[in-house]
Amino acid sequence: MSETKALASYVVSNRWADIPDDVRHEARRALLNYVGCAIGGSPHPAMDLAIRALGPFSGERTASVLGRSERLDPLHASLMNGISSHVEDYDDTTPKNYSHTSSPVASALFAYASANPVRGREFVEAFILGFETASRVGNAVYPSHYDLGWHMTGTIGVFGAAAAVGKLLGLNAQEMVWALGLAATQSAGLREMFGSMGKAFHPGRSAQNGYAAALLAKAGFTAGERGIEGPRGFAHVQAASRDLTKITSRLGVDFDLRENTYKPFPCGIVNHPTIDGAIQIHDEHRPDPSSIVAVRLRVAPLVMDLCNQQNITRGLQGKFSVYHGAAVGLVRGKAGLREYTDEAVSDPQVKRVREAATAVGDPSITEDQARIEVELEDGRRLSKFVEQSLGNIHRPLSDRQLEDKFRDQAVLVLPASDVDTLIQLCWRVDQLDDVGELVTAAVPAAARAVRQRESVT
Amino acid sequence: MSETKALASYVVSNRWADIPDDVRHEARRALLNYVGCAIGGSPHPAMDLAIRALGPFSGERTASVLGRSERLDPLHASLMNGISSHVEDYDDTTPKNYSHTSSPVASALFAYASANPVRGREFVEAFILGFETASRVGNAVYPSHYDLGWHMTGTIGVFGAAAAVGKLLGLNAQEMVWALGLAATQSAGLREMFGSMGKAFHPGRSAQNGYAAALLAKAGFTAGERGIEGPRGFAHVQAASRDLTKITSRLGVDFDLRENTYKPFPCGIVNHPTIDGAIQIHDEHRPDPSSIVAVRLRVAPLVMDLCNQQNITRGLQGKFSVYHGAAVGLVRGKAGLREYTDEAVSDPQVKRVREAATAVGDPSITEDQARIEVELEDGRRLSKFVEQSLGNIHRPLSDRQLEDKFRDQAVLVLPASDVDTLIQLCWRVDQLDDVGELVTAAVPAAARAVRQRESVT
Repeated sequence: MSETKALASYVVSNRWADIPDDVRHEARRALLNYVGCAIGGSPHPAMDLAIRALGPFSGERTASVLGRSERLDPLHASLMNGISSHVEDYDDTTPKNYSHTSSPVASALFAYASANPVRGREFVEAFILGFETASRVGNAVYPSHYDLGWHMTGTIGVFGAAAAVGKLLGLNAQEMVWALGLAATQSAGLREMFGSMGKAFHPGRSAQNGYAAALLAKAGFTAGERGIEGPRGFAHVQAASRDLTKITSRLGVDFDLRENTYKPFPCGIVNHPTIDGAIQIHDEHRPDPSSIVAVRLRVAPLVMDLCNQQNITRGLQGKFSVYHGAAVGLVRGKAGLREYTDEAVSDPQVKRVREAATAVGDPSITEDQARIEVELEDGRRLSKFVEQSLGNIHRPLSDRQLEDKFRDQAVLVLPASDVDTLIQLCWRVDQLDDVGELVTAAVPAAARAVRQRESVT
Repeated sequence: MSETKALASYVVSNRWADIPDDVRHEARRALLNYVGCAIGGSPHPAMDLAIRALGPFSGERTASVLGRSERLDPLHASLMNGISSHVEDYDDTTPKNYSHTSSPVASALFAYASANPVRGREFVEAFILGFETASRVGNAVYPSHYDLGWHMTGTIGVFGAAAAVGKLLGLNAQEMVWALGLAATQSAGLREMFGSMGKAFHPGRSAQNGYAAALLAKAGFTAGERGIEGPRGFAHVQAASRDLTKITSRLGVDFDLRENTYKPFPCGIVNHPTIDGAIQIHDEHRPDPSSIVAVRLRVAPLVMDLCNQQNITRGLQGKFSVYHGAAVGLVRGKAGLREYTDEAVSDPQVKRVREAATAVGDPSITEDQARIEVELEDGRRLSKFVEQSLGNIHRPLSDRQLEDKFRDQAVLVLPASDVDTLIQLCWRVDQLDDVGELVTAAVPAAARAVRQRESVT
C-alpha cells in the first residue's frame, strides 16, 4: 500500500480506545503548552498587522482567535492561531525532526472547535493523529529536507492540519488521500524568512491550508493519489533523500508525541543550558545582583556562532544573546516573555550583569550543557555545571513547570483567576463535552462578556 | 542590488508610458484569451466543488467570479478564477519556461478589479508587470525546477499575483520586497497532482496567496529581504540550478509577454499538429465522414508515449488521444471544448473515424509537426504535412482566431450578443474607466440582472 493511502486509512480508522494512556497525557501537556504560547503571542505586533490586513476578508465570524478579542471565520482564525503560537519561538519541538508540530495542528483544531461543537476526546484524538501525521512525514524527509532550506513547521504542518480537521469532518479513506494530496501540493515555507514575521506565518498558513484541504476533499475535490510518495510528490520533490518507511513503520504503536519537548525559555535553544544554570544559581544562592562582578560562561562552540551579542538594546536581540540569558537568570531568576522585552534588555541591573559576562566556546561542552561561574564582590565564587538542559528529552518540564510557563504567558492577557480555570480546562480537555468552552475561556474577559450578552439577546 | 530588490523596485517605479505598444497589444491578447478560458472553465465540476467547499467561508461578497453567478470576497474570487481559467488546460504558455502565467496573475487582478475601482491602463500595466515578474522568476530556475517536479504555473504564479496586486495597492519598494518574500514562502504546487483537480487548484491558490501577500506587505507584515535569491530562498531551495541574471537582465526592455502563445485546442499540445492538419483537410476537402475508410498519422515519437489511447469513452481521455484529435478535426472541422465532452467521444461518426485511424511514431517528425493521410471510399487520398503547429510561436493565433476561441467558450455561459460586447471590452481594456465593467459583462446575464436590481434598490 502507498504511504499516502496507509496514513489516510490509519487516520480514518483509528478510535479513541486505540490511543495509549501515556500518549493521551502527553497530548494534554502539548495542548496546555500550545494554548499558553498562543495566548502569550497573541498581543505580538505580527498579530495586529495580520488581522488588520486580512481581517476585512473574513467570512462569517464564527470563531475566536486564542487570546484575542477579534472574531474571524475558522480558516482565518487558524492562520492567526498559528502565527501567535509560534511568533515568540516558545512552542514545542519534536527532537526527531526539530519541528514545532503542535502549532499548525492545534491552530486549525481550536479554530474548528471554536465554530463547531466538538467533544473533547474527539478533539484530542484528532490532535494526536494530526501530530503523528505531520511528524512522520517530517521523519521521512529529515534532515535533507531541512538542510535544503525548508522550514519544516510550515512544510509538514499542513499535512497534520489536514489529517486532524479531516478526522473531525469524518472523511472517508479516499477523501483523506485527497486531503493529504492537497496538503502536499500546498506544502511551503522557506528558512529565508527567519528573523522576520514570515517565520510565524508558516504554521499559520499551514493550519489554514490544511483545514481548507480537508474541506475541499470532503466536497469531492480530487488530488493526486500519491501526494506524499509519488515520483512528483512531496518527498521526492522537496527532499534530496528520504526514508518512506518512517511514515508507516509501527503506525499506531510508536507515537512521536511521546518524545515531544517544551521550551522553558522563549529564545534560541542553544542558550537554554546557560539560562538554566543561571536560574539554579539564583535559586540556590539568591546573590544580590549588585554584588556580581564577573560571570564566566563555558558553552558549546555553536553558541558563540549564534548568540555572541552583548551590546544590545532590543528584546529580540536578547533572544540571540547568551550573556542576556545568563543575566536575566541571575538577576530575575527567570526567563519568560517579560525577560525578552526592550524594557528588560535596558533594565540597569540586567544590563550591568550582562556586561560583566564573558563566554568561551569549548568543544568539550555539548549543546545541552553549560558551565557558569559567578564571582561576587566579596570574592565568593558560585558555579554550576548543567549536564542536561531543562526541557530537553532527558529532563522534561514537569506538569507543574508547564503550568508555570502557561501562567507566565497567559497573565499578559487574562486575569490570574481566569488563568487557573483555563489551566484546569486544558488538563481536562478530553473530558469536555464541547471544546468551545475552552476556547471561550482563552479570550480576554471583555470579549467573552460581549459574547455572552450577544448569546442572551 | 539583490534580485528581489531589483524586481521590486522595477515594479514599483514602472509607469504606463514605459510599456512599448506591442507589449500592450500582446497584453490585450493575453487578457482576451484569459477571460475566454475563465468563462469556458467556469461550469467545470471542479468549480462547483470548490465553491461548495469554500464559499461558506467567504468574506463580504464584493467580487464576481468570471463566468459564475456566485459572488465571493476578492481572495476567494481569485482562487476560483484561477481554477476555471486553467482547468481545461486551454490557457496560454510562455515557451521560455512552459508556464501558464496569465492564469494566476489575471485571476487575482480581475478579482481585485471586481471589488475595487481600477482604471484600465493601470490594470493592464499591473498585468504586464505581474506576468513579467512571474516569468522571469521562472526563467531563472527553468528547467531544473520543473524537472524536480514543480508545477511552475503554481510556483511562479504567486510572485506574479503579488507583484500585480501590489502594484495596484501602491506598495513602496520595501513593501514590494516583503510581498515578493511572502510570495516566495508560499510558492507551491506539485506535478504529482496532474490528472486531478489539484492541478487547476495551483494557479488559483497562487492568485489568492499572491494577493494576500500584497495585502500583508501593505500592512507592514515583514518577510525575509531576499526571498528569491537568498541562500534559503526560492531559487536555491526549489531548484537544483539557477541563473539569477535572467531575473534582472534587460528588465523593462525585453518582455516575455511578446513570446506568449495561445492554445488553439484544449488538449495536450503534442496533439496540436495532428488536429491542425485534420482541420485543414476538413476545410479544404469537406470529406463526407462516412466516406473515410482509413486515417494514417505520422507523428513525433513522444505523441505515441503520451496520447496513444484509442478505445475511449470519456471526454478527458479524448484529450490524451491523438486519434480522437484527428477524428474531431476531420468530422467536425474543429476541436473546441465541445469536442472533448463525453458526448463527443461517443458521437458515432467521431468514434468510427477515430477507430479507422492508425499512428506511427517517426523520429524525423518534430513535436510541432504531423503528417496525415486520409483514404476515402472512392480510393482518393487526402494528405497534409503540418510544418509548424498552429498556435506555436512561429504560427501564432491571429486576433481573429483568438476571438473565435473566445466565442467558442463564452457561448457556453453567455448569450452570443453579450459575447461580442465582452470581446470588444477586452480589446479596449486599457481604455476602460473601470475594469469592473468588463467583469460585470463576464458573468451570466441572470446574475448581472440581479446585481443591477440590487444597485437600483
